[in-house]
Amino acid sequence: MTSPLRRSLAAALRLAAVGSGRAAARSVSVGFGPDRRRSSSLAPTKALLFRQLFESESSTYTYLLADAQTKEAVLIDPVLETIDRDLKLIEELGLDLKVAVNTHCHADHITSTGLMKNRVVGLQSAISKFSGAAADIQLSEGDHITFGKQHLTVRETPGHTDGCVTLVLGDQSMAFTGDALLIRGCGRTDFQQGSPKKLYHSVHQKIFSLPEQCLLYPAHDYTGRTVSTVGEERRFNPRLTKSLEEFVSIMDNLNLPKPKKIDISVPANLVCGIHEV
Amino acid sequence: MTSPLRRSLAAALRLAAVGSGRAAARSVSVGFGPDRRRSSSLAPTKALLFRQLFESESSTYTYLLADAQTKEAVLIDPVLETIDRDLKLIEELGLDLKVAVNTHCHADHITSTGLMKNRVVGLQSAISKFSGAAADIQLSEGDHITFGKQHLTVRETPGHTDGCVTLVLGDQSMAFTGDALLIRGCGRTDFQQGSPKKLYHSVHQKIFSLPEQCLLYPAHDYTGRTVSTVGEERRFNPRLTKSLEEFVSIMDNLNLPKPKKIDISVPANLVCGIHEV
Repeated sequence: MTSPLRRSLAAALRLAAVGSGRAAARSVSVGFGPDRRRSSSLAPTKALLFRQLFESESSTYTYLLADAQTKEAVLIDPVLETIDRDLKLIEELGLDLKVAVNTHCHADHITSTGLMKNRVVGLQSAISKFSGAAADIQLSEGDHITFGKQHLTVRETPGHTDGCVTLVLGDQSMAFTGDALLIRGCGRTDFQQGSPKKLYHSVHQKIFSLPEQCLLYPAHDYTGRTVSTVGEERRFNPRLTKSLEEFVSIMDNLNLPKPKKIDISVPANLVCGIHEV
Repeated sequence: MTSPLRRSLAAALRLAAVGSGRAAARSVSVGFGPDRRRSSSLAPTKALLFRQLFESESSTYTYLLADAQTKEAVLIDPVLETIDRDLKLIEELGLDLKVAVNTHCHADHITSTGLMKNRVVGLQSAISKFSGAAADIQLSEGDHITFGKQHLTVRETPGHTDGCVTLVLGDQSMAFTGDALLIRGCGRTDFQQGSPKKLYHSVHQKIFSLPEQCLLYPAHDYTGRTVSTVGEERRFNPRLTKSLEEFVSIMDNLNLPKPKKIDISVPANLVCGIHEV
């Protein structure tokens, strides 16, 4: 991204230049590899530190997960506008942020991962290898994102975009569904390689196959809801409870306006957001 | 409240008249009484169903807690504008809503408890006996609000208003602090019997005395944070970490504008919100 564009973006987003949000990071490596272990073995979720954070302009949820013992942490879907809030919290909690991961290449906001990498020594960015976006770690099915004794397992859930993933906590008690599945809804499928047929199969095969009580944390909610469960969405999601044919028809007839920020968000997110302000 | 005022309020709040949100309620009684048991005995939080809900106009959090086995439920600080969302969720989850409780007489929004009582058979409203507000149950220190095998214990935490309470889950893993303690902040003390000195003592004696890991859920957050802990607020709250004298000086010099809705919210909340639309 050119510097003038970057500067104008920063100005447009009223992003404060901040030096105080720098979080310390150690050189502990974070493991990635195929999911060879069965994830039915229970992870020590009692030792999980978990925070749900909200960015009101794009109604985006950012999730902070950390191993309460080792303090190694992962941040899911951080937003440029809230980078200072997020880094301050990470610093206060004494966390060692290892990975900032995007569930997909967002069209409605700019990720803070690029800028965060400049502020947190050793931080790695991650995104699906099918997203077309630059990142330190290109994720694919079954990969683990490990933080301390905890890990997230990658499930590829394309359909909103080709590079959408759902991140499932080791004990399958929580899953971060991005825009694949929203609470009583789902991401649109009318741009960025969107395919209602792919999305339907992704949700049914990769998300609805999780335990009924698994908590589902989406990338967005527009009516103040914070969490759902697999059981609830299987019963009450007004779109995904339909047949494939009905679902495709619903998705093909939403007639939604183009996202306001798509023309600046997608190019920026393809290079991991902006890197300097 | 007179009918014309009620009607104008409903119109002003763009409140949809809804008949579909009616939730069934059984006649199971809910126990209230002094807290004679030590709350250090662990309650079965695994069997707790918990939802945090957000109302964006007043940035208010509403909390739904239910015993996952018996389905008996309590709703904390429900807001008039989101009554349909909340009742729909309660219905979908098959819950038996027994009590709708307000942590205090709110100045920034109208409670939905009055209207909800008209829609949920057997529902009881609850608020502090020091609030001056009408409700079926007048709460005081040590009272239990019991739902199934779970309960909330009332701790009186005046200072924002005289009738502020903090509701602590039986095992002390969670506390709902209302406006007494916000994340890195606290409620204002410049109207409705506000007293910075009282608030300081309430927070230190009744909230900071809870276990370090106890999750704190406030009535509001204005920057997208959802939860804190006792340990965090004891270390990082910029107001409550100060001496009493410094705290009083901070609170006496906030110079905040009057809440936009105080003149309609407080009179309405003194009679449990509006009762019909």
